[in-house]
Amino acid sequence: MVYKVGRPRTALLDRDRIADAALAMIDDTGDFALPALARVLNVQTASLYHHVPGRAGLIELLRDRVTADIDATVLRTEPWDAGLRALARSYRDAFARHPRLVPLLATTTVRNPAVIEAYDAMVGLLTDVGFRAEEIIDVLTALENLIIGSALDLAAPEVMWEIPDDTPAPRLAAALAAAPTGPDRADRAFEAGLTALITGFKTLLEER
Amino acid sequence: MVYKVGRPRTALLDRDRIADAALAMIDDTGDFALPALARVLNVQTASLYHHVPGRAGLIELLRDRVTADIDATVLRTEPWDAGLRALARSYRDAFARHPRLVPLLATTTVRNPAVIEAYDAMVGLLTDVGFRAEEIIDVLTALENLIIGSALDLAAPEVMWEIPDDTPAPRLAAALAAAPTGPDRADRAFEAGLTALITGFKTLLEER
Repeated sequence: MVYKVGRPRTALLDRDRIADAALAMIDDTGDFALPALARVLNVQTASLYHHVPGRAGLIELLRDRVTADIDATVLRTEPWDAGLRALARSYRDAFARHPRLVPLLATTTVRNPAVIEAYDAMVGLLTDVGFRAEEIIDVLTALENLIIGSALDLAAPEVMWEIPDDTPAPRLAAALAAAPTGPDRADRAFEAGLTALITGFKTLLEER
Repeated sequence: MVYKVGRPRTALLDRDRIADAALAMIDDTGDFALPALARVLNVQTASLYHHVPGRAGLIELLRDRVTADIDATVLRTEPWDAGLRALARSYRDAFARHPRLVPLLATTTVRNPAVIEAYDAMVGLLTDVGFRAEEIIDVLTALENLIIGSALDLAAPEVMWEIPDDTPAPRLAAALAAAPTGPDRADRAFEAGLTALITGFKTLLEER
């Protein structure tokens, strides 16, 4: 007969369990702290460091997790603008599932190999279609800024502007009345922005 | 001689002090809760409700505060594209001072009279230059998405991508090497995005 002694919960600690708990805490409160995470997992804070290299490392684990399903092969199988649009859509959808994680991802250096490879493929595409080396990071960042803002917009209420009784805003009122309603409000705005942004980038290339 | 009795701290509670404390808490932790705010202010949670109408109302107070210096008159004094760019810049700068407030602002219905009036002016401008009534909210939201993503980018580290030793990403490495460095990284990406977005919107209007 085998007797188990010690602290079995610690033995069960692994990166996946830590990532699960951190993501739940972020979804709930907008942030995480390692000591609070350790309390939830019923371990010492120091034990967490055996599995994840601190706060930034844990955010990278979460980046890995939320972007795991993104398929960058569309960049090779589609015309460049369609491929870029498709990839932008997958990124927005992935980020939008955890809107409160978005600010943490947006403000932490990307070190995740799979994500770095996807960006490498995007850079390759932008280079091939004629963007100058010194422009590429700006183009990439601009696209990412739109994606990130649009991911947060998916978590916004369906009614984004409510005109107070004593505030005169007849033109905004008319625009709101004319806008299609329904759950695709954020999708339409994202597509409008993506179309305009990519059209603008195409114009930049064509005018050379 | 006058004797003061009672709870002087409660008497000092006002909207400004509540807003100060909430903003400090958000800057620090990414969120706020009314009970925690009450503890910091050394009052009962119920007392807060005498001054602010709950969580959403407090977020609107903060929207008022961070956008107080935005000057929407540029929309009347500049050509439409330059006016829109100038207003977009002021919004991004205002949001960027409190990046952790951005997700809360982006996901709460706008009810603030001054902000509603600025949006009304933007809608008027977009209508005057030829956007269709049913397009306006999408155009406005797309612009806002870029602004919000770019505000978060201002809080990002200067090095946004770090290629791990064992990850092959030669094209990303070349683009990073060719990109201008320095504190204006986020500004350049924002300007590139704003130019492309507004060029794209102009193309939409011209092609009709």
